[in-house]
Amino acid sequence: MPTRGDRLAELVAKRELDCFLVTDLVNVSYLTGFGGTNGACICGAEQRVFLTDFRYTERAEAEIEGWDVVTVTDDWLGGIGERLNGKTGFEDHHMAVRTLKRLEEKLPDGVQLEGAWGTVEKLRRVKDEAELAVIATASELADEIWRFALERGLAGRTELDVAHAAEARMRELGAEPSFPTIVAAGPNGALPHAEPGDRQIGRGELVVFDMGAKLDGYCSDGTRTFATGEPGEEARLVYGTVLDAQETALAAVKAGAKAEDVDGVARELIAAAGHGERFGHGLGHGVGLEVHEEPRVSQRSEDVLATGEVVTVEPGIYLPGELGVRIEDLVVVTDEGYRNLSSLPKDLQLVD
Amino acid sequence: MPTRGDRLAELVAKRELDCFLVTDLVNVSYLTGFGGTNGACICGAEQRVFLTDFRYTERAEAEIEGWDVVTVTDDWLGGIGERLNGKTGFEDHHMAVRTLKRLEEKLPDGVQLEGAWGTVEKLRRVKDEAELAVIATASELADEIWRFALERGLAGRTELDVAHAAEARMRELGAEPSFPTIVAAGPNGALPHAEPGDRQIGRGELVVFDMGAKLDGYCSDGTRTFATGEPGEEARLVYGTVLDAQETALAAVKAGAKAEDVDGVARELIAAAGHGERFGHGLGHGVGLEVHEEPRVSQRSEDVLATGEVVTVEPGIYLPGELGVRIEDLVVVTDEGYRNLSSLPKDLQLVD
Repeated sequence: MPTRGDRLAELVAKRELDCFLVTDLVNVSYLTGFGGTNGACICGAEQRVFLTDFRYTERAEAEIEGWDVVTVTDDWLGGIGERLNGKTGFEDHHMAVRTLKRLEEKLPDGVQLEGAWGTVEKLRRVKDEAELAVIATASELADEIWRFALERGLAGRTELDVAHAAEARMRELGAEPSFPTIVAAGPNGALPHAEPGDRQIGRGELVVFDMGAKLDGYCSDGTRTFATGEPGEEARLVYGTVLDAQETALAAVKAGAKAEDVDGVARELIAAAGHGERFGHGLGHGVGLEVHEEPRVSQRSEDVLATGEVVTVEPGIYLPGELGVRIEDLVVVTDEGYRNLSSLPKDLQLVD
Repeated sequence: MPTRGDRLAELVAKRELDCFLVTDLVNVSYLTGFGGTNGACICGAEQRVFLTDFRYTERAEAEIEGWDVVTVTDDWLGGIGERLNGKTGFEDHHMAVRTLKRLEEKLPDGVQLEGAWGTVEKLRRVKDEAELAVIATASELADEIWRFALERGLAGRTELDVAHAAEARMRELGAEPSFPTIVAAGPNGALPHAEPGDRQIGRGELVVFDMGAKLDGYCSDGTRTFATGEPGEEARLVYGTVLDAQETALAAVKAGAKAEDVDGVARELIAAAGHGERFGHGLGHGVGLEVHEEPRVSQRSEDVLATGEVVTVEPGIYLPGELGVRIEDLVVVTDEGYRNLSSLPKDLQLVD
């Protein structure tokens, strides 16, 4: 079975490059398994070099297989530059302008750098079985935290207290939040990226609760909107529209589907209900080592879904000053459709 | 009193730029007080523009004073580009190569971009009274966590358990770790950036315990090395050398001192004790919104210390396979010397 390095070398050859320099640490970690905070790697037809500094030599030698571990002692960019050859792809969406300038001063004759953004990200889109298993476990763990939070109760607590208790419980269970947990009640729910605050959650409010767990480097991501008692007619209508959009979009998920079409079916439904202006973000995104990664599921996406990709499906409606609803599942794309990693019910739950 | 925007405008004029584009979110937050995750700002003689997307409009209007808040709806780089004029400085140590290329396609006639790394970072070096107060409080809070951890005991626990309990306690007290806590016992102490692991801490071992608290956006940073019972002659000798180096370096801290000289006095002392090769990192670094920022206190630093800067002083000796010692204080540079924000004792403490 080809290693991740082999698969990258294949892409590199396809792009007619002689080698490829990886500097985004997430990509370095994906390719080599390195877990420290300073590393880069160089991949060519026959070349598999991992570079780090003295602090991580021992660790890298323990963690990395199939790559030559090189410790650069003094001149980091010089140590990288001297190992490049010919037409070299680099991660221009990651490397800073000044770093490129300094690296260019260190290049041996005959090396030309060529921006090749998205190369390793492309490899990362389709997850292997081991990756899927970790993401599924992270998602189950997050679902367990939601059940814990609901048992503890929402109304009468502050948003911050609910979020902190959830994150503390997550850490007790050996995971980390994959992003800062969002608990946004009542009018705060209308801010799609609200930070939980000192506002006490009232009765009869909608509470947008967006959370993910990170386990062994892999993220989950999900959202439910709960009601702390009967939220009233309008809230129920909005909730129903979002749920309808979410399930319709889910039904469109399948290997070979265009991401923009999956976004489109949800967007049309929300527009038809008169809230077209109130769904101001994309329908979803890939999830893996990063909580936002390829593919993008949005109006302007050119991605086509493939078996083994893990994406969110998360339409929302946000009525400023009033309320917000977002419902988000994490799913694995399959040949026939999808496998849902989120196990929480989606009909409107009235909770304490 | 000039605002941070005014101080930046002054630097911009001095560099003969017409305006300056800030894209590093930490710098954006420093200048404007914005706490969300997408924003940029443009600063010129008369121009103070803050840009964000629809998710953060309300928040930005609530948080930001003295800057015009602009919501870019569609074309983020286009929205930035059209507001630049003339010779425009940008953060070339932060902006990715590809972003620059795409931004350049959006520029109006007559705008030229010029890399100007370190401009806002320079402003951030000297802290004002409010910043110093927050950092001091964060440091006190971290000291409280060390006392909590020592009361709980080290020997017989795993490094991971000690680190997790410390971080959980920190969060209970309303702070966050400013970096992943290091608890490295026995031979693990020789890895300057060890991750705490499942190794049980034994008796008679040295334990390097490096921790910081982040409070209201500002970081603290400190290290103590404890002994879980009598660690033996060699450990005591190494400890004594590091402590001597740390206190000698502290005595050299003062406004006007060259950072390389402060590093140098510690380095010489460690070299004289025969461990010159075993102190493989710089003596210290600035601390503020980021746990590592300007100035750098190292052999190759060209910085000169100034009143109001906050720096660490943290020599170490690392004997591979055996043990490590690092002692780190966080200090404010003053006209006469320094004010120490770390209150924990530094003589070798034998603990449980």
